[in-house]
Amino acid sequence: MDIREEALKAHKEHQGKLQVSSKMPLKNMHDLSIAYTPGVAEPCREIKQNKELSFEYTCRGNMIAVISDGTRVLGLGDIGPEAAMPVMEGKSVIYKTFADVDAVPICLGTKDPAKIIATIKLLEPSFAGINLEDFSSPKCYDIEDSLKKEMDIPVFHDDQHGTAIAALAGVLGALRFVKKDLANTSIVVNGAGAAGTAIGRILVNAGARNITMVDIGGALYDGMPGLNRVQAALAKDTNKNKRQGTLAEIAAGADVLIGVSAPGVFTGGIIGSLAKDSIVIAMANPVPEVYYADAKAAGAKVAGTGRSDAPNQVNNSSVFPGLFRGALDVRARQINEEMKLAAAYAIANIIPADELSEDYVVPNVFNPLVAPAVAAAVARAAMATGVARITVDPETVRAKTAARVKLGQ
Amino acid sequence: MDIREEALKAHKEHQGKLQVSSKMPLKNMHDLSIAYTPGVAEPCREIKQNKELSFEYTCRGNMIAVISDGTRVLGLGDIGPEAAMPVMEGKSVIYKTFADVDAVPICLGTKDPAKIIATIKLLEPSFAGINLEDFSSPKCYDIEDSLKKEMDIPVFHDDQHGTAIAALAGVLGALRFVKKDLANTSIVVNGAGAAGTAIGRILVNAGARNITMVDIGGALYDGMPGLNRVQAALAKDTNKNKRQGTLAEIAAGADVLIGVSAPGVFTGGIIGSLAKDSIVIAMANPVPEVYYADAKAAGAKVAGTGRSDAPNQVNNSSVFPGLFRGALDVRARQINEEMKLAAAYAIANIIPADELSEDYVVPNVFNPLVAPAVAAAVARAAMATGVARITVDPETVRAKTAARVKLGQ
Repeated sequence: MDIREEALKAHKEHQGKLQVSSKMPLKNMHDLSIAYTPGVAEPCREIKQNKELSFEYTCRGNMIAVISDGTRVLGLGDIGPEAAMPVMEGKSVIYKTFADVDAVPICLGTKDPAKIIATIKLLEPSFAGINLEDFSSPKCYDIEDSLKKEMDIPVFHDDQHGTAIAALAGVLGALRFVKKDLANTSIVVNGAGAAGTAIGRILVNAGARNITMVDIGGALYDGMPGLNRVQAALAKDTNKNKRQGTLAEIAAGADVLIGVSAPGVFTGGIIGSLAKDSIVIAMANPVPEVYYADAKAAGAKVAGTGRSDAPNQVNNSSVFPGLFRGALDVRARQINEEMKLAAAYAIANIIPADELSEDYVVPNVFNPLVAPAVAAAVARAAMATGVARITVDPETVRAKTAARVKLGQ
Repeated sequence: MDIREEALKAHKEHQGKLQVSSKMPLKNMHDLSIAYTPGVAEPCREIKQNKELSFEYTCRGNMIAVISDGTRVLGLGDIGPEAAMPVMEGKSVIYKTFADVDAVPICLGTKDPAKIIATIKLLEPSFAGINLEDFSSPKCYDIEDSLKKEMDIPVFHDDQHGTAIAALAGVLGALRFVKKDLANTSIVVNGAGAAGTAIGRILVNAGARNITMVDIGGALYDGMPGLNRVQAALAKDTNKNKRQGTLAEIAAGADVLIGVSAPGVFTGGIIGSLAKDSIVIAMANPVPEVYYADAKAAGAKVAGTGRSDAPNQVNNSSVFPGLFRGALDVRARQINEEMKLAAAYAIANIIPADELSEDYVVPNVFNPLVAPAVAAAVARAAMATGVARITVDPETVRAKTAARVKLGQ
């Protein structure tokens, strides 16, 4: 049975992948009187006096929503909300398995950004965070920006920021191995959609000073016509020399080449033109800009892709579970830039220096140290930047997360 | 420790009552490739071709939402969405425990009916049913009516219809014991809010011909000023003689007195004035219109309340789990009157005739036969009335439900 048949069979057999379950068994009338009437009135009364207690007395404290409209599902495009459900459900399963975050998949029956924003805003009392997923660009920017302003819980578009954190972690890990410094590294990001612009932005925020974004029309530069507002802002903060040119022209001599674009666009010629000890991270999924073996053959010192069947998998599955675990554990009001950077550094520093090799610059997504490290770092950054509702020792967050990880069980 | 302390402690210790869990364990890369990329693309593609398959390939098929705005929480009033969460969560736990229905609690951050309707409508692709809960009256009527027209999945306001089904089941069970016939029984329903009007309506639909609704202003009659649209419609179909008068005046000589009103309003005098072999069902919660012992002392032949500490508990916990189980098992598009009546008769007929007694006219909510019987009856009624998407043998529904019940586990 090939993977397609096996996937269909498994989804049908289980009727999907996710269920709810009770944390308080109901065995008799007494149990019912605690979980439901009349006992339930007590937490209700307490929360009425202080809404913040809803994080403590209800499932909200550990529950986020994974929300999509199904307009840009990875590799499938605009397939609609019903058809997007298996992906959101899969994401929820990863949240639960990797970091014990309760994530509810919700696919909305509209493509209208105003309706999407209005709807998600009204879900706030039930959730401690929102993972936006697979919304098409550029509306994904407006949806996230509006909701971040209006909501007092984290709103996180994973296609942008989870991917960006994973990419930064990959770059940082590879730079540790080749012993180059981020600030003085020249980086080319090919693809200036939702993921690419987020990668550009996080590289800027991490201190990279020589970044050039490239899209279909060539290198992005300040003042380039036809850019959307996010691209325009990023163009101001990158490509300081306002170079113009094609990917091949811009990539020549670069230290790092990152792709969030299209299958096969990283040719042998382009890779061969990179600087010594070059790093190629090709994240298009499932078919990358260049396969691992081809990148190596063309001269890349370190190559990584989004795929699990080659070394150096750079994938946001390493990011989002621990990220939200840390955010939930301090009841964060948002996920800010410092928290994202902290997550990337946490992942990049997991592999001990003496274990780094060209085929092992980032930890495997099943590495059980990842989510605890990310959660602890994110919790620390949230507290340091004043967006945490409560104070918790980051080492406690790490230890508790480690105990919650259900990998291999 | 009293029940209040115990309830607070339990809610805090578990951080609420509900969690999500995975039906497909992720132990390794292969598992991940089935549940997530690339395998997940297959069910996505199938559902894109045929949306109905989302009931089969995703958790949607067994998942409903329990939705409230927290404006009329039982015994607590308008406490807001955050504070209403423990009740919705409790309801979800009951759904899971009694009938293995996955129910997600969602409390909305608005009281505006138009926004509530718009929001719930957009959640349709993710759920197979909607349980509306604790919305204030009269807006609850408009919300339910609008959503029933706009949505192709069951929308069910449990405060109205779950309560009505439970009340009808209680009346039918009691009538079995006293050997009276519903059609020729005179019934007074005190309280013409959401629950009371639904009780009146289901009694009409069940064939009761002598019903009088009573509210603060006395008996409802056709043309009475000040009635809302639901009360006005019901007044046309009840109280055929257009009697006017207070509860005490109207109740004198009645066979059945049902209360969904206020604590203590069923005085000894009123109960003493009822017909021979009278039936009193006092559903105000947690303090009923009359306590069981007081009703008996005043001359009621059969007395029941919503409470678990006295015989004949009449409570919608007996109803909603099995009702949605049956609806989900046939992928019903709605829950119609026939399905509600079928649920009531299923509950009322569970106790064998020779076991009926004045203190045992309805099954205990923990009776494991209830949900399977309700589910089978509801599935059958759904198929018979053309609202089922698929055909299933009702006896299979019964057997499978029995296997799914987790009472006492």
